[in-house]
Parts: sequence; C-alpha cells; structure tokens
Amino acid sequence: MTLLAREAMHASLQDPVLESIGFLNEIMSRYPGALSFAPGAPHPAPYTELNTARYIDRFVAHAASTSRTPDMAARLLYEYGPAQGLINDIVADALRRDLGIDADPDSLVITVGAQEAMLLVLRALIASPDDLLAVSDPCFVGITSAASLLGAGVQAVPEDADGLDVDALSEACRAARRSGRRIRACYVAPDYANPSGTRMAAERRLRLLELADEEDFLVLEDNAYGFTAPPGTELPALKSLDTGRRVVHIGTFAKVCFPGARVGYVVADQIVRASDGSAVTLAAELARLKTAVTVNTSPICQALIAGMLLEHGGSLTELSRTRSVLYRRNLAHLLQALDRETVGGLPDGVEWNRPEGGFFVRMRLPVPVDAQLLEISAAEHGVLWTPMAPFHPGGGGTHTLRLSCSYLGPERIDEGVRRLVAFLREYAMPGTATAVVGGVSQ
Amino acid sequence: MTLLAREAMHASLQDPVLESIGFLNEIMSRYPGALSFAPGAPHPAPYTELNTARYIDRFVAHAASTSRTPDMAARLLYEYGPAQGLINDIVADALRRDLGIDADPDSLVITVGAQEAMLLVLRALIASPDDLLAVSDPCFVGITSAASLLGAGVQAVPEDADGLDVDALSEACRAARRSGRRIRACYVAPDYANPSGTRMAAERRLRLLELADEEDFLVLEDNAYGFTAPPGTELPALKSLDTGRRVVHIGTFAKVCFPGARVGYVVADQIVRASDGSAVTLAAELARLKTAVTVNTSPICQALIAGMLLEHGGSLTELSRTRSVLYRRNLAHLLQALDRETVGGLPDGVEWNRPEGGFFVRMRLPVPVDAQLLEISAAEHGVLWTPMAPFHPGGGGTHTLRLSCSYLGPERIDEGVRRLVAFLREYAMPGTATAVVGGVSQ
Repeated sequence: MTLLAREAMHASLQDPVLESIGFLNEIMSRYPGALSFAPGAPHPAPYTELNTARYIDRFVAHAASTSRTPDMAARLLYEYGPAQGLINDIVADALRRDLGIDADPDSLVITVGAQEAMLLVLRALIASPDDLLAVSDPCFVGITSAASLLGAGVQAVPEDADGLDVDALSEACRAARRSGRRIRACYVAPDYANPSGTRMAAERRLRLLELADEEDFLVLEDNAYGFTAPPGTELPALKSLDTGRRVVHIGTFAKVCFPGARVGYVVADQIVRASDGSAVTLAAELARLKTAVTVNTSPICQALIAGMLLEHGGSLTELSRTRSVLYRRNLAHLLQALDRETVGGLPDGVEWNRPEGGFFVRMRLPVPVDAQLLEISAAEHGVLWTPMAPFHPGGGGTHTLRLSCSYLGPERIDEGVRRLVAFLREYAMPGTATAVVGGVSQ
Repeated sequence: MTLLAREAMHASLQDPVLESIGFLNEIMSRYPGALSFAPGAPHPAPYTELNTARYIDRFVAHAASTSRTPDMAARLLYEYGPAQGLINDIVADALRRDLGIDADPDSLVITVGAQEAMLLVLRALIASPDDLLAVSDPCFVGITSAASLLGAGVQAVPEDADGLDVDALSEACRAARRSGRRIRACYVAPDYANPSGTRMAAERRLRLLELADEEDFLVLEDNAYGFTAPPGTELPALKSLDTGRRVVHIGTFAKVCFPGARVGYVVADQIVRASDGSAVTLAAELARLKTAVTVNTSPICQALIAGMLLEHGGSLTELSRTRSVLYRRNLAHLLQALDRETVGGLPDGVEWNRPEGGFFVRMRLPVPVDAQLLEISAAEHGVLWTPMAPFHPGGGGTHTLRLSCSYLGPERIDEGVRRLVAFLREYAMPGTATAVVGGVSQ
C-alpha cells in the first residue's frame, strides 16, 4: 500500500500553525463538555432570521432589472460566471456608502472568503525568495498559513497598544534591502485585530501609508472586525485614506452575514503594467490567478450575500447593526465578568487588554501557555482558550492566550469566566502546570 | 499612483495558458453574435428543473435523521463546518454504488470544484523544484495552471488514440531520475478527456497502475466526463482498479449537477506517515492545506449537491441520466453535421476524431491554428472555437482546434457547422490566412 513520508511532501504540511489548528480541533472534540473561549466563530443567533430563498430572489430581481432578461438572471445562479465576480457593483456601492472607499466595481474580486483573497494577493506579489511579506506580530493565522503554502518569506513586525510599530517596519524594510531582499507587502488588521484585539491609532494609519509610499510596498488591510466599533468611534479604513493606491483592502461577509456563504472580496485598484505597455488592474490579475484556484465564487453564494445587502438598503452598516450590538454586548460582558470574578485576586502577572470592539481579548500569564496547559485547563476545569504562540511568526506569545466570546451567550460567558478564574488560581503560578502534567501523562 | 510591473510579479501571471483564457473571453465579448464551439460549459436546459430550496431541505432532513437535532442540522448551512467536508458519506456512497470505488468517507475532501482539489493535491505532493508533475499532452488547462501557480515543474507525456503513452511515461520517469528529479504524480483524464476527447483503453489503465507502483508515483485521475459514456460501454475508473492506493480520484459536480454550486471532491486514501510514526490519510493533509486556501467549501453548496444526490437515490448515474443522453445527442449531432456539410469536400488535411462521449471533438487543420485564425473565423464567418496549443504543455497542438458542443442545441450546432465549414473552405489552406490578416489589420 502506498505510504507517503510527510518529510517528502510540501513544507507547509509541517508548518506549526497548521499543526496548532489541528490540535485545537482535536482537543475540542475530546472535551465536548468544555466551555470554549477558543473559536472566533460568529454568533448563531442571527442565523434563525436568515431567509436564503428571499435573498436569492432579491438578487435575481436586481439582476433582471439591470441588463438581463429574467431567464438570463435566473440562469446566472447555476452557471460558472466571471472569475472576478457577479456582485461587484453591489459590494462597491456598500464600501463607498459605509467605509468611504471609492472603488470601481472592476477593481474588486469576489472571493471564496477573505482567505482566498489573501492567497491570491500573496501569489501575485511574491515572485521570488527575495520577496517578503511583512505582518503585524501577532497576526491572523490565515495570512501566515497562506504564505507558508506559497513558500513566501514572512517578516514579523511587532505591534504595541496603538497597533503596528511603523518605525520597526521601516527598519525591517531597510534591513531587507541590505540583504538583497524586498518587503513587497505588509499585512495589517487595523480594527480589533485577531488575535490581539488591538486597534491601530489614527496617526499610525497615516504613517503606515507614508512609509508604504517611501518604501514602495502595498498594505494588505484586513477589515473583518471594523463593523464592531462602537458607533461614533470608528477610525477611517486605510483604504479610505489611500490617495496613492497603496492599499489592497480585504473583507469578508462571514461576520456580517454568515460564514457558510464563503464570500469575501478584495479591492485591488493598483495598475499592473506589462512589458508591452498594456495595463490592467491588479484585480484583473487576481481574477486570472483565481481561475487556477477555484475558477469562480459560487454565484448562488454571491446572490445570497448580495440579496442580504440589498434587503438592508445596500449598506453594510445596516446589515451588521444587530450583530455589532450583540458582539459589543458579549465583549463588555466578558470584561465585566473577568473584573467581577477576580475581585478576590489572581496570581501576580495575570493581565489582559480591554478592547472596545472585535471578538478577542488577550491575556498574559506568568507561566508558559502551551498545549500542555490547555489540556489541563480542559481536563480539570472544563474551559478552553487559544494559545497565542502560533499567532506570533516572530516567535513570541509563549505566555499569552486568546479569549473569544463571539459565539457565546451571557450565561455561558459567566460560567466560562468562573471556570477560567478557577483554572488561573490553580495553575497560573510558575511551577504548577509542569508538576501536574507529569501526573496526567502517567 | 502605484504602478506594478508584471515582470516583478509571480511568473504564473505571464503564463501563456492564463493569457489564452483571457483572450478567448475577450474575443467572445467582441463577437457576441458569433456561434461558439469554444466554451466547454454544461447545457443550461437542466437548470430550469432545479429546485434549490427542496435540495437544501432534503439534506437538512437527512442530517437531522442521522446524528443531529433539527436545529443543529439547520445551523450547519450557515456555519464554517469541517474543512474536509459535510457530505463525504453521501458522496462516498455514490462512488461505491456507481463507480465501484470503495472509499471511506474520511478519505474524501469536498472541494470548491475539481480545480481546488487539483491545487491541493499538487501542493501536498510537490515539495521542491526536483518534484515533477507528469501530464497527458494535451491536457486540461486547470491542472497546468495550478502547477504554474505553485511553480511546479511539468513533464508532458504524449497520448495517442488509446490515451496516455505509458511507455513514454516510463521513459520520462527514468529520464527524471537521471537528472536527479522525480515524477511525483501523473495527471490523466481517462474518459473523454478535455480537450482531446480521447478515452484511455482498458489495457492502458492497468499498465499505468503497474508503472505507478514500479516508479512510486501517484496517479491523479480526473473523472469529469465519465458519466457521458454510452450505457454498457463504460470502462472501469482507475480508482476502482486501484489495489495499491496509487490513485487520487478527482471529481466535480459541475457537469452532473451544475457549475454554480462550485462543488467537487477528491478521494485520497493514501497514508501519510510523519517522522514520529503517526499516520493520517492524504485527505486529512489536503484538508489542512485547504484551511489556507478557502477554509471550507460552502455548506449551503454542499447541501444543494447532497440533496440533489439524495433525490436521485444517492446515485450519480441516476442523477446524470438525462444529462448524459443530452450530451451524447449533441455529440452525435455535431459529428453528423460535420459529415453532412462536408460531402462537397474540404481542403486536404482537415480531419477530426469521433469520440463516443464527452464534450469535445478535436480537429486538425493543414494551417497554423492561432489567435489570428480565430479572429478571422469570428469576424468573417461568425464562428468561434478553441485553439489547442495552450492545452499542450509539450509545445504541440499548433495545427489543431477543439470543438465543444456541450451547451448548444441541435439547430445551433447545425448553423455553427455550416459556418465552420465555410470558414474551413476559405482558410484551411496553407497561405490563405496570413494574406487576409494583412488586410484585416490595416
């Protein structure tokens, strides 16, 4: 029988990031009764109000009202359709209305989630081992796993409470140049990033764009969580500030609609010039690459999302209003529960940040946060969370964990925090975990 | 404004295969009145009978009847779901029933069309510049464009009327070894391949599997067109003959259901062993890679396909019966029309094959078949077809074109053949095209 040696297969299969995702799934299945702050999944409550047939009909009616006969509009759902997408005009309208992003529909590609968008952009930009992707450290594993799959070199750039350290990025650009390499793009999630919950300060946003101009790289902006900002506190999307077409803006409908649609998008209005002088948008190039990945995004899924948008006046803000309230309620509840349950004290060195939006809170412990500790937490206290080290391509995060409260209800958050605090009181002190793991593994 | 030089971007963007797809789309849009034998798209007639709501309900009822509550079953549609897929048991049942492929559901991954399956398999197997993918020459551009995106080396292996030349593949394996390289996999579409229409003879199938064992490579079997075989003439799928787990079987629901679902699958029951001795299926490894490409296949789309299958007794054969009849009727009609319209003669050297199934007929001309000739055909005779050179990674196909009749009706086929024959009588003689192109371009 055919045996394949993993060592002889592509290096991305040995990537610790993919390993860690596998381990998280595995431990969740072994402890089904554990209360989990691990997955960053959307809350299921809005699913009960979804009416897929109505959304699809709504899109078909819209398509029929523009340039097509009703028969042609209905057939769109079942055919392949253009690689660049079918609902670009509707998404472009929403981006203009809600985020002040002025993008031509032709500069968009509708993708199979934000993940495919990341893969396509990296593939287009990373041409050789000398081309590097800079990422905020910590950062979303989706971008680093896509880089790993493509064999792209990653340069970690630290962040602080105000987001990406632009000075460090500037230095990284110079260092790369000195070694004959080049930072082609920098990935950031400026609004309540996964996993740190950090929001990039307004002034940093402008400095990042200036540096991109100076050093000639593109900024890959991931806007998954911007919709959770408290009303009136929103900061401008990098793309809305982008006078020099330095920003590639990546979005997803997984959080504002639902993940099962697998629909995301990328705004890539940069101009690509061929040696013969002809020019196309970067979006058109991404669409060509997409034919080799998924051919096109399911038109039925696109119709679902477009129909949902149209039912809410074509506005992402309207569409996400109740979800935004729900996620802020959960986050406030989590932070309040942590305060309430820790009134009696916690081991020294346990601390966490207090984001105003997003799905995530980051907690530092005075002990190593690893698979062993997670196993103990699950087995003895029935509570799960995510170790942060896999989110740190620069090698940090060994003492931090991520708490996600997005898909839980208030009672579950309360119960989870009680379990978590009991766990912390027992094990968040140097020396405790190792001793017990010896016992567990025997 | 940001200008990107295509030369500084990934080499796959300069791949002539992607260029040629772009050109075909462009010429179709410039000649909307032309009758087109170019796209291999499925016929739209079955779309009018589709009832998406019913299929989704059918799947949800099935899911609720197995291991889930009705609420959990309904929520499946909207959540992320497992990377490996949600309908693996239903697809595995169908493969066993219809193709004699005995695969555990855990050895399947449900993908975003067959295209994603190809990309994932190549990514897993191609670890270095020394790892080669062998392909039948000509072959489907989806596999060569995926190889190009991953920077994988491709070894073209000729085919004859009985399919892949296994002796030539054997020699290619030896030649690769002599140069320190290795053929890791060989892609074939044994049943009425796109673009050649060739079917691999039964004896060749067995020899290919023997060689795979001898030379330790995997066979990537693409089964997109097997369902169009005249009843009683089917040859066994390579995977059904595969006693040594040498075959990775790739399929799509684009033709037997509809393309807009973007659902395909891959059977990968090979065992992958890690250095620590642990073992998983290749399918599990592909699913890990999939988290970096599309995360998972839309559960709504999976539900649609599974519901359609269940409505047809869980049988691909039942599901595809009317489509199979339709495509054979079209193919027979095309071949008859070619015979009828050419009774008055054709230029010497115009000839074509006569497949009994599939979507495609290959035609050889005594003149170069290129973009110039296609432009003339569109402009002067209102008929389009596909030049074959991009399908030939080995550099051949300069004098052949592909005719597809899959999405046309009989009257359109008749009219198209009349136009095609008029075109051939005028231009399929050495010297004619060049002279006229001079005129056109002035």
